[in-house]
Amino acid sequence: MIGGVGEFNLIARLTSNLASGAGIALGIGDDAAVLAPRPGHHIVATIDGQVEGVHFRRALSPAHAVGYRSIVTNLSDLAAMGADPRWVLVALTLPADLEIAWIDEAYRGMGDVLARFGGAIVGGNVSRSGRDIVIDVTAVGEVPAGKALTRAGARPGDAIVVTGSPGRSAAGLALLLDPSAADIPAPTRQRLIEAHFYPIPRIAIGKALGETAIATSAIDISDGLSADLGHILAASGVGATLDLDSLPADDDVATFASAVGRDAIDLTLTGGEAYELLFTCRPADVGRALALIRDAGVSAHPIGVIDDTNALTVRGNGGHARRLGGHDHFGVRGME
Amino acid sequence: MIGGVGEFNLIARLTSNLASGAGIALGIGDDAAVLAPRPGHHIVATIDGQVEGVHFRRALSPAHAVGYRSIVTNLSDLAAMGADPRWVLVALTLPADLEIAWIDEAYRGMGDVLARFGGAIVGGNVSRSGRDIVIDVTAVGEVPAGKALTRAGARPGDAIVVTGSPGRSAAGLALLLDPSAADIPAPTRQRLIEAHFYPIPRIAIGKALGETAIATSAIDISDGLSADLGHILAASGVGATLDLDSLPADDDVATFASAVGRDAIDLTLTGGEAYELLFTCRPADVGRALALIRDAGVSAHPIGVIDDTNALTVRGNGGHARRLGGHDHFGVRGME
Repeated sequence: MIGGVGEFNLIARLTSNLASGAGIALGIGDDAAVLAPRPGHHIVATIDGQVEGVHFRRALSPAHAVGYRSIVTNLSDLAAMGADPRWVLVALTLPADLEIAWIDEAYRGMGDVLARFGGAIVGGNVSRSGRDIVIDVTAVGEVPAGKALTRAGARPGDAIVVTGSPGRSAAGLALLLDPSAADIPAPTRQRLIEAHFYPIPRIAIGKALGETAIATSAIDISDGLSADLGHILAASGVGATLDLDSLPADDDVATFASAVGRDAIDLTLTGGEAYELLFTCRPADVGRALALIRDAGVSAHPIGVIDDTNALTVRGNGGHARRLGGHDHFGVRGME
Repeated sequence: MIGGVGEFNLIARLTSNLASGAGIALGIGDDAAVLAPRPGHHIVATIDGQVEGVHFRRALSPAHAVGYRSIVTNLSDLAAMGADPRWVLVALTLPADLEIAWIDEAYRGMGDVLARFGGAIVGGNVSRSGRDIVIDVTAVGEVPAGKALTRAGARPGDAIVVTGSPGRSAAGLALLLDPSAADIPAPTRQRLIEAHFYPIPRIAIGKALGETAIATSAIDISDGLSADLGHILAASGVGATLDLDSLPADDDVATFASAVGRDAIDLTLTGGEAYELLFTCRPADVGRALALIRDAGVSAHPIGVIDDTNALTVRGNGGHARRLGGHDHFGVRGME
């Protein structure tokens, strides 16, 4: 158990396998890390956490996935800014009776994300907790000065594009919480749960969209596609029309939705923790955007257009009006 | 209560009064903050937390002090690196039944530290918690490239210097935990508790020691003077001799120690959470070091000498041998 190891030994154990990386003048072991940013770059910093009982349940989520997600949620924020992940700090709050194997596995999950998408753990902190595990992660990346993507640049006429299939993570979470959902083939079930446990931060795509200045605004989908589009609209001071018939039609999401009597479009529009990118670009750049995303091995769909209204309008899907769950920032005008 | 406010409203409430500062290309409100480091500087990053039931008890610590300390522990780490505080990210994990006034006060405490010592909150995260409050803070500072102070530069012959009176915080904590301790004048009691609630990060001193290259090594006293000296010795591969008669003799600590039957020297040597600076410098630089610390309005004491042993030797205090509590990294040779 953690309680028997001691703070300094635990830190040594967790950090012994961490590779040092470029731009680290001084890593773990002193009062703070000393880092060398690249000239001509801004740094991009974000903090996000995984809280037991809120973001995961120890009985349902493997420690490896909890660690992986604790890093990915932050790297996804960097991706949405067009930034390159460089340095990560991890604050662990752990109950004394936690098995050491749990935190070893969580660190293995963290290391797997960083090895694949960039960045190195350069600092951390370990505290005791009364009961629950809290993992707070700060990720610091770099972006060429002036090239950061923000939520504020969408202009009327811009196309709205989304990567991947945002409904998959929410479907996977629903299956975790209610494994009894019938009539879903095991491979589908497994792929959806995998999508929830191991979302892919769209780092390469975010960097490419920023460096080429193709994207006029961007956000990652943590609150759900429609809610996160709402953040872009609010920050940019514009409205939008979404074409429901253009949404990604994911076979696994469709299978899940049909088996449990839910609406696949609703899952895609409102499912959270997808960590896909939602961005806008000039209509003339849609082809280039789709090509660079395809080159990264990822699917993408233009799903609507920015307009000069103050509302989010939805159309398509047989003309049915539709309320967008969890999205009350904008009036919704269905195409009855 | 927090639970009735909603995450986005809470974030808006907490961040509405935060001043934007220099070097912030994009602050709170997007996926991540975009920051402009100064050319020729390295960035210095640290993460530390305040956990309810571990670092504070809600019944004993005012929320303002909890917020203040959540920032100070990090700024003190920056001070020990000779760095200038610039940017701060705050991750709050809060029980839904927490009164809003509590977190408002905590944020006021955070703001007070930053207004006085530098740095601005540029990002954050709010999560629900099952029961306890956890505040994790990342502080990012800057230091001229190559000027960072580390634990590793102490050389035999160097003087060991400590700022302030490290025993005060531990005495204040003891009084908080056992208010019944008799025969202590109210002003003394109040000053010691204040020292625990509101330690002062030695930012200006750390920066001056780094920029002048006077300090050969430095650390902040979070684990206790002797334990933190142990970290310097381990990182530098040296030993040291401490002169107990040279330790700061603080009147309030002496009053407290005498009233509760504790040893004032032991409190000064082993009391944690002092957030004073402990550093080494060439003997020829001691005068300059003391002068610059005095110019900052702070007391300082040379308390020993680095040697080429592998041990921490203590002498003085009437020749009594002494075990250093909480310090088992080094053999202790008392001067019997």
